[in-house]
Amino acid sequence: MNSFGNIFRVSIFGESHGRWVGVTIDGCPAGIEMQESDLLPDLERRKAGVAGTTPRKEDDLPVFVSGIFSGKTTGAPLTIVFENNNIRSADYEAMRDTPRPGHADFVLHKKFNGFNDYRGGGHSSGRLTVALVAAGVVAKKILKGIRVEALLIEAGGIADVDAAVAKAIEQQDSIGGIVACRVQGLPIGLGEPFFNSVESVISHAVFSVPAIKAIEFGAGFAAAGMTGSSHNDAIMNEEGATATNNAGGVNGGITNGNELYFRVAVKPTSSTPQTQNTWNNATQSVAPFAVKGRHDLCIALRVPVVIEAVTALALADLYMLHTK
Amino acid sequence: MNSFGNIFRVSIFGESHGRWVGVTIDGCPAGIEMQESDLLPDLERRKAGVAGTTPRKEDDLPVFVSGIFSGKTTGAPLTIVFENNNIRSADYEAMRDTPRPGHADFVLHKKFNGFNDYRGGGHSSGRLTVALVAAGVVAKKILKGIRVEALLIEAGGIADVDAAVAKAIEQQDSIGGIVACRVQGLPIGLGEPFFNSVESVISHAVFSVPAIKAIEFGAGFAAAGMTGSSHNDAIMNEEGATATNNAGGVNGGITNGNELYFRVAVKPTSSTPQTQNTWNNATQSVAPFAVKGRHDLCIALRVPVVIEAVTALALADLYMLHTK
Amino acid sequence: MNSFGNIFRVSIFGESHGRWVGVTIDGCPAGIEMQESDLLPDLERRKAGVAGTTPRKEDDLPVFVSGIFSGKTTGAPLTIVFENNNIRSADYEAMRDTPRPGHADFVLHKKFNGFNDYRGGGHSSGRLTVALVAAGVVAKKILKGIRVEALLIEAGGIADVDAAVAKAIEQQDSIGGIVACRVQGLPIGLGEPFFNSVESVISHAVFSVPAIKAIEFGAGFAAAGMTGSSHNDAIMNEEGATATNNAGGVNGGITNGNELYFRVAVKPTSSTPQTQNTWNNATQSVAPFAVKGRHDLCIALRVPVVIEAVTALALADLYMLHTK
Amino acid sequence: MNSFGNIFRVSIFGESHGRWVGVTIDGCPAGIEMQESDLLPDLERRKAGVAGTTPRKEDDLPVFVSGIFSGKTTGAPLTIVFENNNIRSADYEAMRDTPRPGHADFVLHKKFNGFNDYRGGGHSSGRLTVALVAAGVVAKKILKGIRVEALLIEAGGIADVDAAVAKAIEQQDSIGGIVACRVQGLPIGLGEPFFNSVESVISHAVFSVPAIKAIEFGAGFAAAGMTGSSHNDAIMNEEGATATNNAGGVNGGITNGNELYFRVAVKPTSSTPQTQNTWNNATQSVAPFAVKGRHDLCIALRVPVVIEAVTALALADLYMLHTK
Repeated sequence: MNSFGNIFRVSIFGESHGRWVGVTIDGCPAGIEMQESDLLPDLERRKAGVAGTTPRKEDDLPVFVSGIFSGKTTGAPLTIVFENNNIRSADYEAMRDTPRPGHADFVLHKKFNGFNDYRGGGHSSGRLTVALVAAGVVAKKILKGIRVEALLIEAGGIADVDAAVAKAIEQQDSIGGIVACRVQGLPIGLGEPFFNSVESVISHAVFSVPAIKAIEFGAGFAAAGMTGSSHNDAIMNEEGATATNNAGGVNGGITNGNELYFRVAVKPTSSTPQTQNTWNNATQSVAPFAVKGRHDLCIALRVPVVIEAVTALALADLYMLHTK
Repeated sequence: MNSFGNIFRVSIFGESHGRWVGVTIDGCPAGIEMQESDLLPDLERRKAGVAGTTPRKEDDLPVFVSGIFSGKTTGAPLTIVFENNNIRSADYEAMRDTPRPGHADFVLHKKFNGFNDYRGGGHSSGRLTVALVAAGVVAKKILKGIRVEALLIEAGGIADVDAAVAKAIEQQDSIGGIVACRVQGLPIGLGEPFFNSVESVISHAVFSVPAIKAIEFGAGFAAAGMTGSSHNDAIMNEEGATATNNAGGVNGGITNGNELYFRVAVKPTSSTPQTQNTWNNATQSVAPFAVKGRHDLCIALRVPVVIEAVTALALADLYMLHTK
Repeated sequence: MNSFGNIFRVSIFGESHGRWVGVTIDGCPAGIEMQESDLLPDLERRKAGVAGTTPRKEDDLPVFVSGIFSGKTTGAPLTIVFENNNIRSADYEAMRDTPRPGHADFVLHKKFNGFNDYRGGGHSSGRLTVALVAAGVVAKKILKGIRVEALLIEAGGIADVDAAVAKAIEQQDSIGGIVACRVQGLPIGLGEPFFNSVESVISHAVFSVPAIKAIEFGAGFAAAGMTGSSHNDAIMNEEGATATNNAGGVNGGITNGNELYFRVAVKPTSSTPQTQNTWNNATQSVAPFAVKGRHDLCIALRVPVVIEAVTALALADLYMLHTK
Repeated sequence: MNSFGNIFRVSIFGESHGRWVGVTIDGCPAGIEMQESDLLPDLERRKAGVAGTTPRKEDDLPVFVSGIFSGKTTGAPLTIVFENNNIRSADYEAMRDTPRPGHADFVLHKKFNGFNDYRGGGHSSGRLTVALVAAGVVAKKILKGIRVEALLIEAGGIADVDAAVAKAIEQQDSIGGIVACRVQGLPIGLGEPFFNSVESVISHAVFSVPAIKAIEFGAGFAAAGMTGSSHNDAIMNEEGATATNNAGGVNGGITNGNELYFRVAVKPTSSTPQTQNTWNNATQSVAPFAVKGRHDLCIALRVPVVIEAVTALALADLYMLHTK
C-alpha cells in the first residue's frame, strides 16, 4: 500500500519515467495558506546539482491539481504533481537482463511478475521523494510552533562531509552517511504505549525513504551498553524537562516534551561506477556489470530534507489525532 | 490506537493490575490447529524467574475466549486472555507524586489528564507483552515454512550475557542489551517500495515493544561508512541468492528471499535499585528517589520472544496480503 | 473484519455458545464516567422476555475488563465482556446437515470451510448484539448534547405492534418490522462528500445489525417519485433550519444541523415454527424442515436499541474526527 | 476521508472547476490489460447529452498518469485524470449569498469555514463521478466472471422513463428515479457477519454517489411486512441455489452464490428551474431563488453506470480479500 497516516493521509503515485509523479493529501485542514512557491525551498534542498549528486536535474515545479483555492487549502483532497521532463529511458533498456546489485530490480520483477515499469526504477525510483518533500511542506505548516530539522552529520564514515564526497569522487565509488533529526516544540502526549508508539510511527515513515537501513532514538544502540542509573533522564521540573536526553524525547512510546532526537543510516548509493558482479539472466551466469546512467555518488546529501518531510508526515498525523 | 495490521489485525487490551490482559486477532484464517498448550513454550520463554528478572511470576495460562472450536481456528475473531493473579498494588500508591525517571508515568499522566490507571504502569505495563507473545504464536503458525528466531547477543555492553547479569546483580543497577532476529524461508516480494517497506512494517511492530530504542537491518549503521561496491550484495543465481547480506534480506523495501536480519537495542530497565533524582510534585522540587517493587535488572533477557512475536505479526500481515 | 470506525474503533468477539462475548473500544477519550450499571437500561431494552421474543434469557451483566479505573475511562482500550450462561448446544447438533433457510448456516460453512462454530450461529449469532449495545452506551456518552432514539413503528405490516405480535403468535409464524431512528443535536458538518458520507457511514453501521435489509434517509424511496421543487428543503435561517426535512438532515453527505432521520427494514426472524423446505446434505434432497430451539417470533421488537447503538458508534467516530 | 477499500483502495481528488479531477487506485494487481479506450463505453454512459441531462459536455478523455506500462497494470498506484475543459465559473459567483436548497452549499461553507471551492460545488460536484466510473472499469476487470449491471427502472414515479423525462421537461421541474442493480457470478462467502457485511460495504459505496437516499436488498422494505415462512428462501441444492431471492443474495451479511440484487432511490436533481425559497445571507431573509447554470432535469438517467462502478469497487475489495 502506498499511503501513510490515519487522519492526515498521504498517498503517492507515479514512476521515474512516467508523465508525472504526485501526491494526494487527504485530511488536510481547510484555511492553510499555500502557494506553489512555498514548496520551492525544500524542493531545492532535495535537488541534485552539487558535487556528488546526479547530473539529472528536474525543474521540480509543483503543480496544484486540487484542494487549493484562492491561495488556501480547502479541506478537500490536496493533489500536487511534478512533471518528469528529463528522461533518458534508453539508459535502462540494456540492463533488463542484469538485476543491479543493491537495487530493487530483482525483487520488483518477481513481486509484479515482470509487469513493473522497470525504466529508472519505475514507481520505486528516488524520483518519488519529490512528492514526499512536497507533502512534508504541507505537514510542516500543520505543525504550528514545531520545528523539524535534519542534517547530514557524517558521510563515508567521517564527519567532514565535503572531504568524504571528494574522496568518493576520486575513488569513483558511492558512499553513505548518517542523518540526525531534531524536532523541537512538540507537545507532551503524542503516540501510544504499544502499536503506535512515536518510535513506531516515525520509523514507519522514515523507512519509507529509499536507502535508509537503521534508526536510533536518543542514545539508541549505545543505550544497550548503559546502566539504568546512567541512562534514565532525571525529570527536573513540572513540565517534564529532563537533565539529559537519552530517551530522545520519548518515554513509553509517548513524547515527553523534550527534543525528539533520532539518527538514521543511509546506505551507499546502490549505483556505483565500480564494476560489480551480478546474475545475468541472458547468459545464466554471474558476470561483471557496470551501472550506466546518471546517479548520485552520495545520495545521503539529498536525504535530510526527505527525512524532515516524512517525519513531519508522521508527526502531523499524531498531532491532529492528539489535538482532537 | 492499540491495534496493528491490515488484514491480520491484532488488538491488545488490559492493564497490569486489572483483572485480565488479552488480545484479539481479527482476520485469522479458519482451520489452523490451536491448543492452549501450543502457547506455553513461548510464554515460558517470556517469563521471569531466572537471575536478573523480576520475582513477580504469573501463571500465564492462556484462556481462549473465542475463535477456536474443536481445536481449530474458526475464522471468527480469536480472543485470548490471561488472568492477573499476582498483584501488589500497594507498591505503587506511594509514588504517584514522583514520576519515575525513564518510565512513562509522567507522559501518561499528562496524555490522559490524570485518568490513566497508574498502578504498575497500567495499560503501558510490560505485562501486556504476554498478549503480544500469544498473538505471535498464532502468527508463526500462519507463516508456514518460515522460521523467526531472536536471540540476546549482548547485555550490558558485552557478549557474555551471564557475566553481564552477574555484574548487574553485584552492582545493583539495571542493564540493557542487543537482540538479533533472523527470519528464514520468506518468499520474495513482501513489502512495498515506500510507505509499507518491510523495514517500515517491522520497525513499526518492533518499536511496539517497550524498551526498544533502535533497529538496524543488515549492515545497519555500519552501512553508512561503507562504499557502494563493498555494501552491494552480489546476486549469484536466478533465485536471487546473494553472496553477502548487507541488505539484511530487503531491497527497495521488499524481501529478496535471503535471510531477513535485524538487530534491536534494548535500553536498561528503567526501574533500577539505584537512587535517582526526579521531580516531586508534592514538594515541588527535585529529590532523590528509589524505585520499590519487583523488577527486572535485565529486561533484555525476556525480550527475544517478544521481538519474535511482533516480527511474526508484521510478517503474517504482509504474507497474507502477498499470497492473496 | 470485525471492527468499525477510524478513531473511535469498535471490535467485537465471541460466539453464541462460547464462554463470553465481548467488545473492545479503542480510542475512547479518558475521563468519561462509566459504571457497569450505566449499561443496564439499554441492555434491558435489548433483552428477550416480552411476548414474541425468545424464552432464552441471559443475565447480560457487563464485566469491565479494562479501560476503566475509579469509575472513569482511562483512555486505554475499553473491553467489556458478557458471560454466556444459558446455553443449550444440543438443540443445534441435529441440524448440521440441514442449512436453515434464511440463516447464515450455509454461507458460514462454505466461507470457513466447515471450521466455523456452528452452535447457535457461532460468531454470527444475534447474541453478539449485546456487545454492540454495550459499545453504544459508551458512544452515546461521547455524543454530548446529542440524542439518538429508535422506535419500532411497524410490525408485520401494521402500525399496531402489539396486534401484529398477537397475530404472529396465533399464526405461529415470524414477522418483521420497520424501525425509525431520529438523532437530534448534531453539529453541522459531519461526514464527507463521497466515500464517507453520513449516509455511507451510518448505513455501514446499520447493516451490521442482523436482519436489516433496507435503509432510507428522509423521504427515502418516496423521493424517487417527487419533483425537485417539492423535495428540496427550503433553508429558513442562518443556522440552516429547513422548512421540511426530506433530506433527513443530510445534504451532499454532510449533516445540516436538522434532525437526522432514517428508517430501516427488519426482515422476519429466519427461525419460524413453520415447516419449510431446505436442502438436506445427508439425504441429498430437498426436504421439509422445522427449526427447533428458542427463538424470537418478532426479533424487530429487540432491534431499536441495537440500531441506536450502531448509529451512535457511527456518529461518535464522525464526531470525534469533526471536533479534532 | 476521500478513499474507500482496504486492499483495493480508491481515492478521488479534484474539483468541478479545477484543472483536473482524478482517481488513484492503490492495490490493483499487476498484469491486467488496460487501455484508455477500455474506459470509454462506461464514461459514455455517464455523459450528459440526452434529453433531461445537462448541456455541459466534457470530452471525458481519461489520461493514465501512472501504474500502466505497455498496456498493462504494473501493480504500482494507478492514477487516472480527466481535464476539466468546459467551465463557466461566472454562473456560480452570483449565488454565494444564497445557499441552494437541496445542495451542499450551506454545509460545505460551514464545514470548511468558508474555505471550500464553491465554484460548481467544488470537490462535492457530481463531476467527480467521472473518476468513480473510471475506477469502476478497473474494478470490473478484477471481478473475473462476475457481471454487474444497473438499470434505471423508474423515473418520476413511473416505469416509463422516457415519458417521465418528457413530463419533467414540460413541467420544467427536476425528477428522481429508482435504479436496480444485479450482480451475477459472485462466489459464496464474500462479506462478514457484522461490521463488514456485504450490505454494509455495498451501501457504504452506494451512498458515496450523490443524490442516493435509500437502498434495499432483495425484498427490502417489503420484507418488513412478510412472514418468515414466506420470506425465507428455500435452499434447493448443494450449491445453495434458492427457490426465491428475497434475501437479495446475502445471508447473514455473506454472499450466498445467488444473484446479488438491490435497488436505490435517486432523489430529484437539486437544481430545478422552478423558483424556490432559501435563506439569503446578504438580505438576512428568506427570498425566492432560481438556480441558473446548466443542469440535469433527471440526474437519475446518468446514475446507473455510477452505481455499477461503486458496486464494483466494493465487491473488488471483498473479492480480493476473499481470494487471498
